[in-house]
Amino acid sequence: MKLATLKNGRDGELILVSRDLTRGVAASDIATNLQQAIERWESVSPMLEARYKELNDAKAHGSFELDQSKLHSPLPRTYHWADGSAYLNHVKLVRQARNAEMPETFWTDPLMYQGGGDKFLAPTEDIEAVSEEHGIDFEGEIAVITDDVPMAVTAEQAAKHIKLIMLVNDVSLRGLIPGELAKGFGFFQAKPASAFSPIAVTPDELGEAWHDGKVNLPLTVNLNGEKFGHPEAGPDMVFSFPQLVAHAAKTRYLGAGAIIGSGTVSNPDPDGGPGKPVADGGVGYSCLAEVRMVEQILHGAAKTSFMRFGDRVRIEMFDRNGKSIFGAIDQQVVKYKAD
Amino acid sequence: MKLATLKNGRDGELILVSRDLTRGVAASDIATNLQQAIERWESVSPMLEARYKELNDAKAHGSFELDQSKLHSPLPRTYHWADGSAYLNHVKLVRQARNAEMPETFWTDPLMYQGGGDKFLAPTEDIEAVSEEHGIDFEGEIAVITDDVPMAVTAEQAAKHIKLIMLVNDVSLRGLIPGELAKGFGFFQAKPASAFSPIAVTPDELGEAWHDGKVNLPLTVNLNGEKFGHPEAGPDMVFSFPQLVAHAAKTRYLGAGAIIGSGTVSNPDPDGGPGKPVADGGVGYSCLAEVRMVEQILHGAAKTSFMRFGDRVRIEMFDRNGKSIFGAIDQQVVKYKAD
Repeated sequence: MKLATLKNGRDGELILVSRDLTRGVAASDIATNLQQAIERWESVSPMLEARYKELNDAKAHGSFELDQSKLHSPLPRTYHWADGSAYLNHVKLVRQARNAEMPETFWTDPLMYQGGGDKFLAPTEDIEAVSEEHGIDFEGEIAVITDDVPMAVTAEQAAKHIKLIMLVNDVSLRGLIPGELAKGFGFFQAKPASAFSPIAVTPDELGEAWHDGKVNLPLTVNLNGEKFGHPEAGPDMVFSFPQLVAHAAKTRYLGAGAIIGSGTVSNPDPDGGPGKPVADGGVGYSCLAEVRMVEQILHGAAKTSFMRFGDRVRIEMFDRNGKSIFGAIDQQVVKYKAD
Repeated sequence: MKLATLKNGRDGELILVSRDLTRGVAASDIATNLQQAIERWESVSPMLEARYKELNDAKAHGSFELDQSKLHSPLPRTYHWADGSAYLNHVKLVRQARNAEMPETFWTDPLMYQGGGDKFLAPTEDIEAVSEEHGIDFEGEIAVITDDVPMAVTAEQAAKHIKLIMLVNDVSLRGLIPGELAKGFGFFQAKPASAFSPIAVTPDELGEAWHDGKVNLPLTVNLNGEKFGHPEAGPDMVFSFPQLVAHAAKTRYLGAGAIIGSGTVSNPDPDGGPGKPVADGGVGYSCLAEVRMVEQILHGAAKTSFMRFGDRVRIEMFDRNGKSIFGAIDQQVVKYKAD
C-alpha cells in the first residue's frame, strides 16, 4: 500500500497513491490524515488496503492524476522523530573530518539523536537557511513510521510495529555541528527541519527488497541535476530498523506516528576504503560531508563546497525495474527572509 | 488564566481552572484540547479569558470541584519539547560529578537538548523504570509553551510567543548519561518521558513574579514527604525564557505547542559555594545528582542514593501568599512490567 498527504493545514489530508505513482484517491473519509490512520492502524488498514486495490485495478471512484508537487511529507509533523546513524562508514568519515576516532562500541550500540518534529518541510519545499556559512548539507536516508511501541521491546517485537517506510532528507548545518557537539548535548541548531519523500509505503510493497529489517536497494542522490550517489541501502546498514526502534524504546514508550531514521546511507569500497565519487567509478555519497572528507584524504583538501543558495538536491529510490517507489524529494536551498 | 487537561484519549479535554485551583469548567467547546487552543491562540484566548473570569466570579455555568488526579499534563504530547539548562550552578555540579570542566562559552551560549514529546506522563502518574541501576533522578524545572515562532527571531520578539508557563519533572537516568554523552549525540535513553504540572498559566497570572522573562519564585521539591529543596527560580537563571526560545528558533520555525524548558532550578550559596542541603540550612536542590555531588565535595562520598522503586517526588510552586500556582507534580517510581 502507498500513502501520501495532500497539503492542507497542519496535518494535511490522507490519500492513497497507485503503485506506479500516476494516480491518487482520497482516503480522508477513512482517516482524516496519516497521524489518525497510524493511531488506529489495525482497524483502518484493511479499509485502506481495499481502496488501494481498487485504485490499482483502475476501479476506484473519484481517482485523479497525481501531482507530486501538491504533496506534503507523509507526516507533516510528528511527536517523535529520532534519527539513528546505522551506516558506520558515514560515521567514520564525518568523525575523521573532526579528527575523532570511532569507538569500537559503535559496532554494538547504535547512535541516535532526537530531532524536532513540529514543522517538516514538504518534499519539494525550499530549504530556507540563514547563512551559507552554516555549511548547508543534505543527508539521504530511509525512515520508518511505527504505531504505539511498548517500552523495552526486543528487536523481534519491534519489527511488528514498523508500519510504513519512506525516504528522508535530514538537512544538516555542518558549520554548527562541531560547536554543538563540543557542548555535549548533541545536535540542535545544526539539525533544522527535515523533509520526507512524498510517498510512504507498507513494507510488503518492497517485496524481496525488504528483508532482515533493511531496504536492499540503492538510494539515488542527484546534486544540481548530476548523479552524486547511488549507494546500496541494505548491506552496510549495521543496525536494522527493528534494532533501531528497540534502541529508541529502551526506556520509554513510543507514540503512534514515531519516525525512526537510518542515518545517511553510505557504502565503503569493496576493498574496505572509504568509497569513491561517482566520477571515479564509485557509488558516490548521500551527503556532501563524505565527499569532502574523501577529497581531503585523496587530494589533501576538500574541493566540493557545501550547498549554496540556488543549489538543488534530489533523493529518490528505484526498484529493480527502474520504477520510483517513494516519489522524489527535490529541494532547492534559498536564503531565509523574515516576513 | 489557568488551563488544564482532563485525561481523555491521547490529547485530553481542555478545561479552565479557577485561580485558587478549587474549581474547573469545561472549555472544550471553545477548543477541544490545549494543542488546538495554542494553534489558534489569538482567536480563542479572549473566549477562554471571558469564561475564566466567570469561573473566578463563581458565575460559570456547569463548574465542578477540581480533582487534580484527573488531570493529564497540560499537553499530553507535543511536536517539540526542548529543554535548556539555564541554571549554570546545576551544570557546573553535574559536570563536576563527571570530572568535566565547564567552558566559559556556557555563560553566553545556552545548552539545550531535544526531548521526546510523544507520551508525557500525567502529573501524578507513576514513573516506570526498567532498573534502579539506571540511576533514576528527578529534575524540577519550569517550562513555557509557545505559539508559532518564526525562524531566527530575536529574544525580544520571542517573548511575545510565550503563551503559557508550567512546571516540569524532567526524569533523568543518571546511570545512562555518561555512556550516551560519550557517544557525542547527546541524551536519548537517559531522558525518558517527562511529566508537567497539572495546571498551565498565562504569564499575567504570575503578576510581578514574572519579569525579565523569568519566574521569580522558589520551586518546592519534596522527596518522600520531606523538604528536599526550595531554590529561587529567578536570580540564577542565566538565560531567560525569551533567550531560550530564540536559541531554539535560530535555524528553524517552532510549531505552536512547542515546550521550552529552563533546566534544573539551582542556586549557588550567597558566598559562591555550590549550595547546601536543606538540613544544613541551605535551599537544597531540585535533583538528586546535585546533592550527591555536594556530599562528595563535603564528605568525600555521595550518601544519598538515586530513586528506588517506591520513592516519591513532589514538585510545586507557591506564590508569596503560600498558594499553589500550578498544582503539584507528585510521582512514585515503580518497576516497569511488560503487559
